[in-house]
Amino acid sequence: MNMEWKSIRLFPIPSIIYLIHNNVQFATLTYVDPSTYQIMGNLKIVTTGILFRFFLKRKLTTLQWMAIVLLTIGTTTSQILVVKGCGEASCDSLFSAPIQGYMLGLLSACLSALAGVYTEYLMKKNNDSLYWQNVQLYTFGVIFNMARLIVDDFRVEFENGPWWQRLLNGYTVTTWLVVLNLGSSGLLVSWLMKYADNIVKVYSTSMAMLLTMLLSIFLFGLKLTLQLFLGIIICMISLHMYFAPPHMLVDLPVTAKMATDNLKEIAIERRVES
Amino acid sequence: MNMEWKSIRLFPIPSIIYLIHNNVQFATLTYVDPSTYQIMGNLKIVTTGILFRFFLKRKLTTLQWMAIVLLTIGTTTSQILVVKGCGEASCDSLFSAPIQGYMLGLLSACLSALAGVYTEYLMKKNNDSLYWQNVQLYTFGVIFNMARLIVDDFRVEFENGPWWQRLLNGYTVTTWLVVLNLGSSGLLVSWLMKYADNIVKVYSTSMAMLLTMLLSIFLFGLKLTLQLFLGIIICMISLHMYFAPPHMLVDLPVTAKMATDNLKEIAIERRVES
Repeated sequence: MNMEWKSIRLFPIPSIIYLIHNNVQFATLTYVDPSTYQIMGNLKIVTTGILFRFFLKRKLTTLQWMAIVLLTIGTTTSQILVVKGCGEASCDSLFSAPIQGYMLGLLSACLSALAGVYTEYLMKKNNDSLYWQNVQLYTFGVIFNMARLIVDDFRVEFENGPWWQRLLNGYTVTTWLVVLNLGSSGLLVSWLMKYADNIVKVYSTSMAMLLTMLLSIFLFGLKLTLQLFLGIIICMISLHMYFAPPHMLVDLPVTAKMATDNLKEIAIERRVES
Repeated sequence: MNMEWKSIRLFPIPSIIYLIHNNVQFATLTYVDPSTYQIMGNLKIVTTGILFRFFLKRKLTTLQWMAIVLLTIGTTTSQILVVKGCGEASCDSLFSAPIQGYMLGLLSACLSALAGVYTEYLMKKNNDSLYWQNVQLYTFGVIFNMARLIVDDFRVEFENGPWWQRLLNGYTVTTWLVVLNLGSSGLLVSWLMKYADNIVKVYSTSMAMLLTMLLSIFLFGLKLTLQLFLGIIICMISLHMYFAPPHMLVDLPVTAKMATDNLKEIAIERRVES
């Protein structure tokens, strides 16, 4: 367990990035409509890939880059009609919002990716227990949130009493189930960051989104659109392109086989000589 | 130049396949709306791949199969909003037409692919001149069409005179330019079939469609939709996946490099020995 300040001081950084990210998100929404905003959210798949490459110095093959772009396109395609009620004349051309909106959306995607990549860096930096790392990560989140609640209390001059007396007001069984759900997925994400990587996380969240949309068809009678259908196939192909071992995707290059064959011949020749 | 009946008798077959295909197309349109019909047209990319594999016995890698599916999805995505004016309530669920419509659409895609693959087989079967092969191919088309015109003439009892007196009625410069255009693309397709293959043709027609859509934005003020934009990227990735040499897409397998390294070591060892 690493308790040095030199190590601990790195853990508030993700919280700070998320703080900035949340504010950029609100700024983005003053320029673009919610559907454009959701569509742009998919850009974080590509920015995660880029930061994963340059910040964590992980090499990706051309095929894996193409897979990442396809995953972005696949999730975008599946969302198009769901979020964009495209009527007779309301079918806007692409890039019709002010340029600031798109710049902020891009910044938002970069910050989101940065937070993810930085968390992976933190989790893999040393062999500390996952739980100790989580404690450090979330303690800073708790402190930041508590600070905000105290500031709010002071602002209304403790009109409603101190925040800790109201913290669990209105909690029902459903609320606790939501807390349990978010808590477990938080643990799972930490686990992913330590033992897998950001790209695995990006694939799992995309697949979760598609699964949710598919389940909505059966559970809530959502209509299966052509876009969702195509989006799912694109994401499946992308998944296979990214994770399948290359020799399953392409025939082994002839040179490799030839080299191995030559090797055998020489080996035989040598045995004869000796 | 192969003038045996045994060889020539194969050339009317594509014309016959196209004859059946045209009738199946009209039957399909009695079940499905034109936009669904156009979307289903993209299925011929996949059926071409399948017949190419099993009729012409050309091996494709997993990556190439995925590229073919992606090309189908890319062209479909780019067409979605252009053909489907998707209003408030008119946004139909997938597969809402009668099943016969989809079966006929699939049959149509198979016939179209069969004609293409068969033509490739004919063109590559022997080393006959491309022009002699074209003469055979098109002569049968001309004969079939002439037969139809004569039948029509008999049906109306030569009310408008024989067909050859009316053949070029209403031809303007534009008409001749269209004829010239179709003639040249016919020659180019034959050239493709003989020296390249059906998959190359499928890619070139898809790219031509996307280029036409892009040009329509500049020339006719068509709006660039998100779907067209995504469709173009999907098709570009597909193109690269299909045609790029595998070693550009994935790092060469480690075993190949190792084998080459071992080879060098042994070579050096041997030189020392001798």
